[in-house]
Amino acid sequence: MKIGKYALDEYSRLTKSFHGSLAPGMLIGGMMVDAALDRLKTTHLFDAICETSSCLPDAIQLLTPCTIGNGWLHIVDLGRFALTLYEKDSGRGVRVFLDAGKTEKWPEVRSWYLKLKAKKEQIREALTDQILKAGLNLFGFQDVEVLPVFMTKRSKGAIAICPVCGEAYPSNHGSLCRACGGQSPYLGTGRMPSGENRE
Amino acid sequence: MKIGKYALDEYSRLTKSFHGSLAPGMLIGGMMVDAALDRLKTTHLFDAICETSSCLPDAIQLLTPCTIGNGWLHIVDLGRFALTLYEKDSGRGVRVFLDAGKTEKWPEVRSWYLKLKAKKEQIREALTDQILKAGLNLFGFQDVEVLPVFMTKRSKGAIAICPVCGEAYPSNHGSLCRACGGQSPYLGTGRMPSGENRE
Repeated sequence: MKIGKYALDEYSRLTKSFHGSLAPGMLIGGMMVDAALDRLKTTHLFDAICETSSCLPDAIQLLTPCTIGNGWLHIVDLGRFALTLYEKDSGRGVRVFLDAGKTEKWPEVRSWYLKLKAKKEQIREALTDQILKAGLNLFGFQDVEVLPVFMTKRSKGAIAICPVCGEAYPSNHGSLCRACGGQSPYLGTGRMPSGENRE
Repeated sequence: MKIGKYALDEYSRLTKSFHGSLAPGMLIGGMMVDAALDRLKTTHLFDAICETSSCLPDAIQLLTPCTIGNGWLHIVDLGRFALTLYEKDSGRGVRVFLDAGKTEKWPEVRSWYLKLKAKKEQIREALTDQILKAGLNLFGFQDVEVLPVFMTKRSKGAIAICPVCGEAYPSNHGSLCRACGGQSPYLGTGRMPSGENRE
């Protein structure tokens, strides 16, 4: 069995190194990405939409050229275990989703997917075994067209210097950077007198 | 010169394979992550906050255990070229940012960072050369504490089946999944009669 260009044990090693473990979501996710690549069959450049932030984005990053940092992977947090690979120019692509209906024949998969039992009660070996046996039979496929916003090239536009923190930010965010405008992820105002706490 | 555990040419190869190219943001980003790892000096588990979605998240994913799919990398899109590594338990960490003020001595870096000239006018060799020569002198450092929301474990909670699309989604999203609730990234309603366009 291969996942993308990797034999299963190679994919397992890669996943452990990048993601931390071969979680069930990484195994199913890898198989879904593989199936999407197989169906997209394009020679054009393609982007990815991932509908969940759990596991699946890492399978996409490992198996396609699309990453969160190069802008070709778009995470739209819908909470559905699904991904789409689509041509950048036409916007047409293939969506693969883990089909809840199809998990009925695979109780360990269903149990994991719908969180029917606590993680510690999962039988990991049986789950892995069912995932591998079920394979493509767990998935649904749709031809989709993405909204135009997903076909535009990402650009920050012009850069400004924030008058409060002194850091560079996209000027289209407004007269202050978002952090100084109240969206800082840190305790305190984030406003530091020049030179304080800096090296 | 090393970036994380990699020699520069190894990091360059890794970056080309994962991100597509050793973009200036991946080179500076790698050096920033390296500097943050060096200063965090913790034996505890740590998470990362990245304040931009451009390049830097990929440097974090390549050089730390934190990825977007395992939930240890949080992207807060403030548009600032900065990252924080912080202990999961205490919330304390170190923030590294590309300091606009410090780029004054390095005109190619400044020009790239503040977008003072078009990409095609950039002299890539001179830019790379200045990045490597400047090194840590380009960065600012701050000790920070993250907001409590960044210290909680990610959980989807209970899972429901959407009555419209039939797919699994986190029930705390409401009575429909977000896609069927109007946030679909695809053209059309996304509502398909059971079985249509599915395999």
